[in-house]
Amino acid sequence: MQKKYLMTPGPTPVPAEVLLAQAKPMIHHRAPGYSKVFLSVLDGLKYVFQTKNEILVFSSSGTGGMESAVTNLFSPGDKVIVVNIGNFGTRFTQICEIYGLNVTEIVYEWGERARVSDVAKALEADKEIKGVFATHSETSTGVVNDIKAIGDAVKDTDAAFIVDTVSGLGALEFKTDEWHVDVAVSGSQKALMAPPGVAFVAVSKKAWDMVEKSTLPKFYFSYKKSLAALQKATPQNPFTPPVSLMLCLDEALKMIREEGLENIIKRHNVLGEAARAGVKALGLEFFGACDETSNAVTAVKAPEGIDGKQIVKIMREQFGITIAGGQSKLAGKIFRLGHLGYYDKFDILVTLSGLEMTLKELGYSFQLGAGVSAAEKVFMENPF
Amino acid sequence: MQKKYLMTPGPTPVPAEVLLAQAKPMIHHRAPGYSKVFLSVLDGLKYVFQTKNEILVFSSSGTGGMESAVTNLFSPGDKVIVVNIGNFGTRFTQICEIYGLNVTEIVYEWGERARVSDVAKALEADKEIKGVFATHSETSTGVVNDIKAIGDAVKDTDAAFIVDTVSGLGALEFKTDEWHVDVAVSGSQKALMAPPGVAFVAVSKKAWDMVEKSTLPKFYFSYKKSLAALQKATPQNPFTPPVSLMLCLDEALKMIREEGLENIIKRHNVLGEAARAGVKALGLEFFGACDETSNAVTAVKAPEGIDGKQIVKIMREQFGITIAGGQSKLAGKIFRLGHLGYYDKFDILVTLSGLEMTLKELGYSFQLGAGVSAAEKVFMENPF
Repeated sequence: MQKKYLMTPGPTPVPAEVLLAQAKPMIHHRAPGYSKVFLSVLDGLKYVFQTKNEILVFSSSGTGGMESAVTNLFSPGDKVIVVNIGNFGTRFTQICEIYGLNVTEIVYEWGERARVSDVAKALEADKEIKGVFATHSETSTGVVNDIKAIGDAVKDTDAAFIVDTVSGLGALEFKTDEWHVDVAVSGSQKALMAPPGVAFVAVSKKAWDMVEKSTLPKFYFSYKKSLAALQKATPQNPFTPPVSLMLCLDEALKMIREEGLENIIKRHNVLGEAARAGVKALGLEFFGACDETSNAVTAVKAPEGIDGKQIVKIMREQFGITIAGGQSKLAGKIFRLGHLGYYDKFDILVTLSGLEMTLKELGYSFQLGAGVSAAEKVFMENPF
Repeated sequence: MQKKYLMTPGPTPVPAEVLLAQAKPMIHHRAPGYSKVFLSVLDGLKYVFQTKNEILVFSSSGTGGMESAVTNLFSPGDKVIVVNIGNFGTRFTQICEIYGLNVTEIVYEWGERARVSDVAKALEADKEIKGVFATHSETSTGVVNDIKAIGDAVKDTDAAFIVDTVSGLGALEFKTDEWHVDVAVSGSQKALMAPPGVAFVAVSKKAWDMVEKSTLPKFYFSYKKSLAALQKATPQNPFTPPVSLMLCLDEALKMIREEGLENIIKRHNVLGEAARAGVKALGLEFFGACDETSNAVTAVKAPEGIDGKQIVKIMREQFGITIAGGQSKLAGKIFRLGHLGYYDKFDILVTLSGLEMTLKELGYSFQLGAGVSAAEKVFMENPF
């Protein structure tokens, strides 16, 4: 018997209450019973997004939500800026380029945080920029961008501000309206504690005005179709929604409301701090700007001479703990601990303990228990 | 207390075994455990599609799958034929037109079946046709097209044959390879007895050759990205898949294998015949070409002077039975009984009984019990 622990930055563990919510009998997506669930989910999402903007829901992964922002707001040849600090920044660039936008990339080394001055300068240099794309929590590196500051730089220009907060929303502070985010994209499977398969976007007035002018083709991800279905007497989705996942999301959002967004963000602060304290006590190095803001994902360099892939493999096979390796160019060089969503103190301790035993096996030298006890100290000093 | 009965043509009832499969703890979509589930689902789907073609899976509704066929095979200006016998034929036309294809529609009155001679004539008239789109089971009218015959007409031309079998697959006979279907599109939420949120396409060699030449933009629904992820050492999806729904689908496909495709098709034949016998015995008229092939959906005209919407409403509110009304131009004029997927004898009897009580309440004159007994007779004569 080996218990399984999911410690990746998405999909994340789903509470049993939420898992069982989807086991309810199927309901029809055009009948009033579904509208009730749908509206309740939208209400909960508005709370988490801290927005009064309309929220649209898609049956897709977060990437579908990212693509929807590109195809619904822009036209071929439109000039846009992509702030790229990692894998998911690159994804925005790829989508924009495939759809024929004219992309100026502000690229940083993986592990770096974007500098708002670079964005301001680029916007100043070209008044025809119609969109700025940025990643909130860059899952590939654990780095969190200062979305508030970038939003301030974009808000008085003609550009729409599009933010991928797939792994940020519900773990880190994210204020859609206050931070002037025109399209905020997120998904069900990260801090919202539900299974993957639902993407959502919060769309501002400024963005809707651009939707009116956009000529790129879209059908499945059409914002106008979504809005029209939402505004029916029986609010619904234009195409069959993932009914069972919406039931999950509804349950998860109720749990989120109960805990309260402020408490949730505080909890993630402490979880992140404990993870970092543990990692540091083991003499390991963080990857890049993984710092006090990186409360969703902790990115750690594999120690000199040890293959990061081996760490991931032993953790999973020997201890039942699934953590994430490095993506793309960081494969084998780093490993990542996810702690966004349904995580409590002992999930961090279990992971650190598994990591200690794994590192010992791989011949890395440190004092057994050092990581665990450093984390315990953080938890005792920061009750939640 | 009122028990609920879902008798719509999708989402359909999900067996408790399948509902509970998704309640299993979340697993990571890049780890070997997921690959096992993924490969098992693909294997099951190949069995149901009766194909050796590669199957690609998307986190989306069936409409996403339909869109994927358009954007992956074609280029702007390409000439295509859409065989349109109802709402879902119109959807293919809309998608094709939004993506700039040059569409020749062969349109039939709602309720009619397509004539293969019309398709053959259109292909003969223009040798530059690159695609023929058709609907297998047109959910809006209950009419089933002769896909085998259309496939025979298309197979020796340069055109790819794209078939929406969202509400056909797993209920009606459908032979992807034998019928020369180049892209067969289906979804999880109909006869496959799983919740909505997964679409899949079976893609032939002929279609893959077109994928190579297609210039339409695509990212989320890219066949090439899907294939590349599938061919990794740990087979996976390019973007986060709907893990819990894949667990459902895996369980549902196991049930399908156990019953056997031939038995399943026979069961649907009898369910359809019983539904039609019951409806006829109540003196009601079928809509259009709803006949012995319409074994997924029975479309019925609302009796003279009675609003179809009232029938749907009373069935739902008073008896807990959700059936479907008419879509688009048929709203209020017809109602539809779904019997594709997890349906047995008594689901039909319950529906007919609820329909009898509803019609009596609406003042329609007939002999109580006539519908139910006619269905019973069919079941006794056709054991399954």
